[in-house]
Amino acid sequence: MSPQSLEQFLHQQIPLSRAMAVTALHVSEESVQLSAPLQPNLNHRATVFGGSAAAVALLAAWSLLHVRLRAPFPSSTIVIQRQSMSYHRPILGTFVARAVLAQPADWPRFLRLLTRRGRARITVASTLHYDGKAVGFFTGDFVAFGGQ
Amino acid sequence: MSPQSLEQFLHQQIPLSRAMAVTALHVSEESVQLSAPLQPNLNHRATVFGGSAAAVALLAAWSLLHVRLRAPFPSSTIVIQRQSMSYHRPILGTFVARAVLAQPADWPRFLRLLTRRGRARITVASTLHYDGKAVGFFTGDFVAFGGQ
Repeated sequence: MSPQSLEQFLHQQIPLSRAMAVTALHVSEESVQLSAPLQPNLNHRATVFGGSAAAVALLAAWSLLHVRLRAPFPSSTIVIQRQSMSYHRPILGTFVARAVLAQPADWPRFLRLLTRRGRARITVASTLHYDGKAVGFFTGDFVAFGGQ
Repeated sequence: MSPQSLEQFLHQQIPLSRAMAVTALHVSEESVQLSAPLQPNLNHRATVFGGSAAAVALLAAWSLLHVRLRAPFPSSTIVIQRQSMSYHRPILGTFVARAVLAQPADWPRFLRLLTRRGRARITVASTLHYDGKAVGFFTGDFVAFGGQ
């Protein structure tokens, strides 16, 4: 899946991604990187609103699973169950959320459970970057459903 | 502060609140209730995007502190430091986030620290309601800064 087609999918299916002006920078099985500018994501202090930061991190995390499950489980659905985010520095401009599996070694077991039980849980970690620094950390627990 | 003036403040200062079509239903020192409709907050499954749900919960939590600090600390700033959210049911329509202090008994100490040290931390809990049920739980740790 190309960054362009992921971006198009997000903008069409999740209108808030368009409102946040999310763009996809990189898409692979290892990581997904999404970016968003300051302007539509401003808060009252002229920095990035914490809700935007977490939402972009969540989109990157969800997108990574969407990309990884497309081939083996094209009709699966992926649902967020729990998330947490810590904010380390204010974000004053365009920022990037980079999502990777929290434990890549869990993936085979996740696929096995999804095949056998039609349901499995996995954790994705997104790091927010701004101005060359990691400025926030997101973790999301997702449940995937769905047969082959 | 009236629901109308909180809503106006949020729409003016945090453009994403306008994109999510957030409305303020109730504002008091005990609780803030914000609402948002499905349409601008849709995901690809025609339910509410988890990022929207958490962002509205965060706005309600932040607003509660904003309202409570206006009189004693009119020039304070309130910053989210950490948040977590658990999603219990899909949200299929207009939902409400109701924010209260996680531990109301902590408030006097919070004000004392803010006065003495110019900085204090407090936790706010928001519950998401849809169709008469609690469908999600948010907790946010905030830091307030700022002299009298």
